[in-house]
Amino acid sequence: MAHTSASAGALLRHVRTGRARSRADLVALTGASRNTVSAKVDQLIAARLLEEGGRGWSTGGRPPTILQFNSGAGCVLAVDLGVTSVDVAVTDLSARILATVGHPIDIADGPGPVLTEVDRLAQEVLAEAGLTPGDVCAVGVGVPGPVEFSTGRPSHPPIMPGWHDHPIPSAFARYECPVYVDNDVNVMALGEIGVEGSVQDLLVVKVGTGIGCGVIVEGRVYRGAQGSAGDIGHISVHPPDGRTVVCRCGNENCLEAIAGGGALLRDAVAAGLDVATTREVVELAVQGDGSALELVRDAGRTIGTVLAALVNFFNPHRIVMTGGVAQAGAPLLAGIREAVYGRSMPLAARALEITVSDAPERSGRVGAALMAIEEFLDEDSVQSLAR
Amino acid sequence: MAHTSASAGALLRHVRTGRARSRADLVALTGASRNTVSAKVDQLIAARLLEEGGRGWSTGGRPPTILQFNSGAGCVLAVDLGVTSVDVAVTDLSARILATVGHPIDIADGPGPVLTEVDRLAQEVLAEAGLTPGDVCAVGVGVPGPVEFSTGRPSHPPIMPGWHDHPIPSAFARYECPVYVDNDVNVMALGEIGVEGSVQDLLVVKVGTGIGCGVIVEGRVYRGAQGSAGDIGHISVHPPDGRTVVCRCGNENCLEAIAGGGALLRDAVAAGLDVATTREVVELAVQGDGSALELVRDAGRTIGTVLAALVNFFNPHRIVMTGGVAQAGAPLLAGIREAVYGRSMPLAARALEITVSDAPERSGRVGAALMAIEEFLDEDSVQSLAR
Repeated sequence: MAHTSASAGALLRHVRTGRARSRADLVALTGASRNTVSAKVDQLIAARLLEEGGRGWSTGGRPPTILQFNSGAGCVLAVDLGVTSVDVAVTDLSARILATVGHPIDIADGPGPVLTEVDRLAQEVLAEAGLTPGDVCAVGVGVPGPVEFSTGRPSHPPIMPGWHDHPIPSAFARYECPVYVDNDVNVMALGEIGVEGSVQDLLVVKVGTGIGCGVIVEGRVYRGAQGSAGDIGHISVHPPDGRTVVCRCGNENCLEAIAGGGALLRDAVAAGLDVATTREVVELAVQGDGSALELVRDAGRTIGTVLAALVNFFNPHRIVMTGGVAQAGAPLLAGIREAVYGRSMPLAARALEITVSDAPERSGRVGAALMAIEEFLDEDSVQSLAR
Repeated sequence: MAHTSASAGALLRHVRTGRARSRADLVALTGASRNTVSAKVDQLIAARLLEEGGRGWSTGGRPPTILQFNSGAGCVLAVDLGVTSVDVAVTDLSARILATVGHPIDIADGPGPVLTEVDRLAQEVLAEAGLTPGDVCAVGVGVPGPVEFSTGRPSHPPIMPGWHDHPIPSAFARYECPVYVDNDVNVMALGEIGVEGSVQDLLVVKVGTGIGCGVIVEGRVYRGAQGSAGDIGHISVHPPDGRTVVCRCGNENCLEAIAGGGALLRDAVAAGLDVATTREVVELAVQGDGSALELVRDAGRTIGTVLAALVNFFNPHRIVMTGGVAQAGAPLLAGIREAVYGRSMPLAARALEITVSDAPERSGRVGAALMAIEEFLDEDSVQSLAR
């Protein structure tokens, strides 16, 4: 087995994820000396991040003292910012939700009014959980657009007018703690892996107004050279009916211009359905309306042609669909599977799972919390905390 | 800075790649104790993998002893197996080629005769370098088809008849050392990163008879769930002229059926060019023949439509083109760039470099050597060697 880092953050991760339950386990996993491990574990216990439990099993000699992660050593604020609503939660350091509240917003009102509302909601959930601003260790925020992760500033977000380059972390200055901001699909992708931190390679594809993809390589968010990895909404596709659609980006036949939520509504209206929102089209499909079912299935086929290419290239373990259009469920999956299984290499498609997120309403909040926890409990933060 | 593993293999990697030049550097990089680092460095010195050099600089106190990687502690055999030729090299542990020899083969003769020839060539290069089988620490083999990396067995390789499931490592039993086998594009991708082990995200696209891609995530080969990542030759494309071509895989309009080396030859013959091989088409293009130039540029455009999608999804730092058709150079790159820069998101395309490999003839051998060295000098092997 390959040995891993023996930093305090890495030792904590081993205990948090259940890979290590004792100092001896940590020595075996890291290859570090017993003294090094013991000194760092003592620091983590002093910082209240680790606790000693009872005695474990032993095959001879004195049984080892069990180490446990103290997920109550602090809390994090998780903010899931959407186009028309925001959810704010406070969680413990295991991303367990202690209190949560949601409220309608209009993202187009701009950062001033929207972040004032987020601030009010954050104070509300903290009070509800019986916590104070001083208890908050980190803040995680997911937003519906591209973000420069290192600064927490949106970068020309197409559906967030007025937000370009706004320093979102400054809205949380009262908490005097690190603030991490990422786009909603990366955040949701973390939420889909969950707390146990699987080492899988995973794609989380959000089909909402736009279409985006969170890319997970060995359990971690993959961002690429400029942080724009997963930006699949403007990949060029060929509609089966040969039509040409100009996308809001100016190019023709981008994936989201043919198969995104806005396109679904446009095509439903053109087909004579009496609908005013994408949600209504999705609801009609769920109720079994034939025209709506066919439109959703067509969108699935088009999305599937792009995913078939990505399956050949990336060979993921799983693809999870999320976002408003994914709530249509079966007809979307049928279209996607038809295209993916028809055009992917057998080896890559053999064990591939394609599913709809079974807890989309939770994955945004849990993912935002996990992002904040993972980043905050990383090597450096914990080193300084446990000094 | 994030701390890294303090295993013997990891310490060795820091010195090999120039990140550490002393025990103090290693303590700073890993966060491990001075005693732990010193004990492991002593083990590595005993195994002759590290050497002590002179004294380094100091800003006060006794200057530190410089540590150097001893790339002469052993040698590796690097085998670059192609469809019509094989190159065998012996290198030191820095992938510096000590001796090399190439010979024509026909991969379709099957593993028996081909690996007998490889064995003969290996003995020839070892003798030329004044080395014996006992000096060989590891063997690296690149083959032109999919391989199950964990066993070194080709998996239904389309252009290697008779090789399916053949245990290639058994052909090197006389060296009593680990043998690593991977497909030629993964091996070439390692060769393109080079010895310094850059942390870049990189795609190496080989356009030969088929089309394949090596995927590098943060300086390491990315393999995906079943090890088939990078298998882009059968992604579905739409030829600009609307024709339909059936691929050897049975599907229609796969990338390599439209833009691979075989397709280029087929289209050149159909266009009335007097050519019998793909190489002759490429040579005509290099000489400036108008028809050949246009065919190569068209192939580049088609390859570029796939790469444009992958640039949006993967956001690489660099794309390096290699293989026989890439030797056409400018016209191929022109077609690729036209499609990629026309259809990729500006953020992802802004700093993207697309080039032709400047040392394709070396990257196969150097990559095979690097694969063997990286795997052999990983945590476990070195732990056992340096015990």
